[in-house]
Amino acid sequence: MKAAVLFELNKPLRIIDIPNLPNLKTGQVKVEMIYSGLCHSQVMEATGGRGEDKYLPHMLGHEGVGIVREVGEGVTKVTSGDVVILGWIRGEGKEAPGGLYDYQGQTINSGGVTTFSEFTIAAENRLVKVPKNLPLDIAVLMGCALPTGAGIVLNELNPEQDKTFAVFGLGGIGLSALIALQLYKPKKIIALDIENEKLALAKELGATDIVNLKEQNPVDAINALVEGGVDYSIEASGKTDVIEQAFLSVRDRGGLCVFASHPPEGELIKIDPLTMHRGKNIRGSWGGGSLPDRDIPKLSDLYFKHRLPLEKILSARYPLVEINQALGDLAERKINRALIDINPSLVKEVSAE
Amino acid sequence: MKAAVLFELNKPLRIIDIPNLPNLKTGQVKVEMIYSGLCHSQVMEATGGRGEDKYLPHMLGHEGVGIVREVGEGVTKVTSGDVVILGWIRGEGKEAPGGLYDYQGQTINSGGVTTFSEFTIAAENRLVKVPKNLPLDIAVLMGCALPTGAGIVLNELNPEQDKTFAVFGLGGIGLSALIALQLYKPKKIIALDIENEKLALAKELGATDIVNLKEQNPVDAINALVEGGVDYSIEASGKTDVIEQAFLSVRDRGGLCVFASHPPEGELIKIDPLTMHRGKNIRGSWGGGSLPDRDIPKLSDLYFKHRLPLEKILSARYPLVEINQALGDLAERKINRALIDINPSLVKEVSAE
Ligand SMILES: NC(=O)c1ccc[n+]([C@@H]2O[C@H](COP(=O)([O-])OP(=O)(O)OC[C@H]3O[C@@H](n4cnc5c(N)ncnc54)[C@H](O)[C@@H]3O)[C@@H](O)[C@H]2O)c1
Ligand SMILES: NC(=O)c1ccc[n+]([C@@H]2O[C@H](COP(=O)([O-])OP(=O)(O)OC[C@H]3O[C@@H](n4cnc5c(N)ncnc54)[C@H](O)[C@@H]3O)[C@@H](O)[C@H]2O)c1
Ligand SMILES: [Zn+2]
Ligand SMILES: [Zn+2]
Repeated sequence: MKAAVLFELNKPLRIIDIPNLPNLKTGQVKVEMIYSGLCHSQVMEATGGRGEDKYLPHMLGHEGVGIVREVGEGVTKVTSGDVVILGWIRGEGKEAPGGLYDYQGQTINSGGVTTFSEFTIAAENRLVKVPKNLPLDIAVLMGCALPTGAGIVLNELNPEQDKTFAVFGLGGIGLSALIALQLYKPKKIIALDIENEKLALAKELGATDIVNLKEQNPVDAINALVEGGVDYSIEASGKTDVIEQAFLSVRDRGGLCVFASHPPEGELIKIDPLTMHRGKNIRGSWGGGSLPDRDIPKLSDLYFKHRLPLEKILSARYPLVEINQALGDLAERKINRALIDINPSLVKEVSAE
Repeated sequence: MKAAVLFELNKPLRIIDIPNLPNLKTGQVKVEMIYSGLCHSQVMEATGGRGEDKYLPHMLGHEGVGIVREVGEGVTKVTSGDVVILGWIRGEGKEAPGGLYDYQGQTINSGGVTTFSEFTIAAENRLVKVPKNLPLDIAVLMGCALPTGAGIVLNELNPEQDKTFAVFGLGGIGLSALIALQLYKPKKIIALDIENEKLALAKELGATDIVNLKEQNPVDAINALVEGGVDYSIEASGKTDVIEQAFLSVRDRGGLCVFASHPPEGELIKIDPLTMHRGKNIRGSWGGGSLPDRDIPKLSDLYFKHRLPLEKILSARYPLVEINQALGDLAERKINRALIDINPSLVKEVSAE
């Protein structure tokens, strides 16, 4: 099978052929991949932004959809033939190590879930069956972007109506949050980024105001729109200085910033303690507080019920062999969430059922 | 009247005689002082730790007790003869500027409340009547130390029973928190400071464990006592690095650090975003979230009902003319909360009533 493997930090992934898959261990599931998503976390991993990497060479990717082909001992949640969402957030079912693949005598490592290969061995607790009728490209987003971005809104803010919001960083996570915010009849959603294309898309997706951070100071711009600052800010730009700005953009006495960003290893957020005394709050998010088994069906229902324009998050499509192009385009902020075609012909098998 | 006035940063307060008090404005109240407390905030103000000071020369002090001698227009909450607690936290009643005192042709400024003088002019909303039977030295602590330290526990943590706590910095604020924690049947209270005397007192006041931060790394020491970290930490040492330690001492997935510290102007707290993703939380406190009119009677009830050993917080007593000695001793960590005797003979007038 074909796989895109990270052999060295800061080098392109190598597309290699792994002839045989290992036998499944307890809790492991073999999945034939249809699509993978692409998250900024993979850019960071591949470019060494996560620091030293003890697991090289290893597989990558943490959101996707595929078809279960075999299950290991103890697996009860899914069975052969099930179409599943793969994601990095732990859900119900057995925790298990990822597959260890042999490539010309060398071991290729992988975590509990990876998605940049034609087949993958994942832990049962990283899989959830695709909800009925959910288009498979949308389903991909349920592995990371939606549970994180929309999860922040649904699980961690759960705001009342008529509140004011700012969303910093309009990639897969930020846009997912922006779309979910519409469910709460917001008074204002201010979208902030440094790319005009992303700002234009945010406007189309419901932002009431947009701010290009290359041109304006965010705290000033936000204060001009909402005196004293917004009730909530959501941050997903990947940068510590933007986390700091997002924090300063919320109002005193109860404003809350939730950030998803996972900035380069070792970078710290710097906060003036007085801003916290004044009642600005900040929290980090871990997968939007989502429980995949509970929240994926919920997100799917919301998608159908409110016709959430989730497909707009997917701005580009690449075959697996062009994964390095996709990673580069994401790093250069040219695209939003990329859809990686691994074996799209399998979609037919699924819809024929 | 005698007053201790800050004329220059980093110079001793000058004890001067102000011959006449100004007429009262709307919302102002004239109080004859009995006691003042002394908080680390005054040390910081006097030594320039709050940055540039536009109000020099000015009065100081923000907790005390005294007797109302005259009320300005619109004041309805207190009347002449009432024995009142003065504190910096805004409560019910009119907001008003502090008195502007004339001293040999020079104006001495003051904020909405000050306490280092024989008489003071304060805003109505900084005054609460002393609850019945409450000893006046204890009442002093209701102006800042208790609403802040105990307020953090009662209003901001409101913890369940059987939780684990760490208290960093065992001065007036930290000890007030420590005493209030006893109300929640804690599993562990770890007290941390750099002075053995303060640690010994904390032990006497109910700490289950003590850690001298000069000798041990707090995160290691706490982890040895509570694996993974405590449920809550409270910080009141005045130092940003201690705020950071207190934050790192709480457990992942829901641990919460609340800090009171107001460190020197411009010093920032540095936080690794990943620790927040892992679910450690931090918040600043503003007067423990206390509403003086609601919380002073409540704190007084708790004092009587649970025989809270609040008098132990008061470790030293100075007449007003020795205020500089008191400030120095507090800065050098030789004392806990100091009681400043301004006119203790008035206590008789009060108890004779
Ligand atoms: N906490 C979690 O559970 C979790 C989950 C997934 C992703 N993440 C992290 O969230 C972040 C975003 O991920 P993504 O996949 O949405 O990334 P992305 O690359 O799709 O989006 C980032 C966006 O931020 C914008 N941006 C970049 N620099 C900016 C700046 N200085 N100011 C304003 N905007 C700027 C980009 O133009 C882009 O629109 C990454 O750090 C990723 O690792 C965290
Ligand atoms: N947020 C608020 O509403 C509020 C209200 C009152 C006071 N404060 C602030 O709270 C802080 C504490 O005030 P206080 O009056 O209790 O002060 P304090 O001087 O009485 O107590 C400080 C304590 O911290 C200890 N300490 C000093 N350096 C330390 C270190 N490196 N490690 C551990 N312990 C250390 C000292 O020994 C002392 O016991 C000050 O910064 C003050 O300005 C804030
Ligand atoms: Zn991701
Ligand atoms: Zn104080």
